[in-house]
Amino acid sequence: MTRWAPGAAGRLHAAALELFLEQGFATTTVPQIAERAGLTTRSFFRYYANKREVLFAGEDELPGVVEQIFQDADPELSPIDVITTGLKTVVIPRLQQFHDEFLIRRTIVNSDEGLQERELRKLAILHKAATAAFTRRGLSPLDANICGRLAVAVYDTTLDIWLADDVESPLHDILDNVLRTLAHITSSTTVGSTDWSVAGPA
Amino acid sequence: MTRWAPGAAGRLHAAALELFLEQGFATTTVPQIAERAGLTTRSFFRYYANKREVLFAGEDELPGVVEQIFQDADPELSPIDVITTGLKTVVIPRLQQFHDEFLIRRTIVNSDEGLQERELRKLAILHKAATAAFTRRGLSPLDANICGRLAVAVYDTTLDIWLADDVESPLHDILDNVLRTLAHITSSTTVGSTDWSVAGPA
Repeated sequence: MTRWAPGAAGRLHAAALELFLEQGFATTTVPQIAERAGLTTRSFFRYYANKREVLFAGEDELPGVVEQIFQDADPELSPIDVITTGLKTVVIPRLQQFHDEFLIRRTIVNSDEGLQERELRKLAILHKAATAAFTRRGLSPLDANICGRLAVAVYDTTLDIWLADDVESPLHDILDNVLRTLAHITSSTTVGSTDWSVAGPA
Repeated sequence: MTRWAPGAAGRLHAAALELFLEQGFATTTVPQIAERAGLTTRSFFRYYANKREVLFAGEDELPGVVEQIFQDADPELSPIDVITTGLKTVVIPRLQQFHDEFLIRRTIVNSDEGLQERELRKLAILHKAATAAFTRRGLSPLDANICGRLAVAVYDTTLDIWLADDVESPLHDILDNVLRTLAHITSSTTVGSTDWSVAGPA
C-alpha cells in the first residue's frame, strides 16, 4: 500500500488504512496512525488535516486530471467520446495497478456514513469540474450539465463493478460495457410522447 | 409556504425557511424558529430532530414514491420509460405547484457546504432505492445500477433547470428535453473502439 505515495506520507497512508480495516474508522486515532507508521503525531499533521482526509488525499489532483483530459481531447470528438477517451487514456492508466488498494479504501468508506457523504462531495466536485470544462468547450448549460453527470456516473459505475468483480475484468472492458449499456438504456424507449427522431444518433 | 405541511409542522417549516433566508442557515437557532412560528422550542423537537432536518422533512416519503412508481409501471415498459412515466405521473404532479418553495429551499441548501453534502446523501438514498427496484424488476446488477443513476440524474437535472429558469417552462417540457439530450449525447459516438451496433435503439 506504500505505492500510493512515497516517504512519510505514504507510510502514514498505509498505516491509516491498516488500522481503519483492523479496528474501524471511528475508533482509530491520529496518534495510533502515527505510531504504526513509526512517526510522530506532529508529522501526521504535516501531511493530513485529520484522519478522514487520509482517504481523500488524491483529491487535489482531480481538477488537473479533468483539465488534462480536455486539453488532450480532439476538438472533433463528441462529448461522450471526450468522456470515453479521457477515461481510457488518462484515468484508467492511473487506476489499473491499484485494484486492491481501491478495494480496501472503498470498504472503509462504505463502513461509515460520514465518509460516504464526503465521498459524494468528491464526486460532486468532479461533476462541477467536468460541467465547467464542457461549457468551455462550447456546450449549452443543459448539455454541459448532463455530460458532467454522465462523466461522473460512468467513472463511478466502472469503478463499482471493477471493485465488486471477483474475476477482475480489465477496466477497459468494464468501461466499454458500461458505455454500451448506457447508450442502450437511454435509447430504448417505447413511450410515444417523446419525439425520439429528433434525438437519434448523430 | 405553509402549503408544505399543515398545522404546527408547517408553521415551523415556513418560519425556518424565512429565517434561513433572512439571516443565514448557520446563525439561525431553533428557539428563533420556534418563536417566529409562535410555538415553543419543545414543540419544534416534536416535529424535527434539528434545524437541518427541517429542509429534509419530506425525505421519508421518497422510498414510498419509488415504490409507487414501480407498482404502477406496466411490465412491458423499458427501464428508461419506467423513469419517464414515473416522473411524469407521480413526481411532477407533486412538484408542480411548489416552484417558489423549491427555489427558496435550493438557495438555502446551496449556501451551506454541510447542507449540500446532506442533499447529496438524499440523492444517494434515491439512487439506492431506484437500483433496488430495478433489480426486483429483473434487471442485471449493472443495468439496475445504471438505471438507478439515470433516474436520479434525470430528476435532479430537470429540477435544476426548472429552478434556474426565469420563464418557468412546464416541467414536462423540461423533462422531455433532458431525456432527448441524454439519449442524443450517449448515442453520439465517433470512436471506433466500441461496437455501438450492439447497443442501437431497441
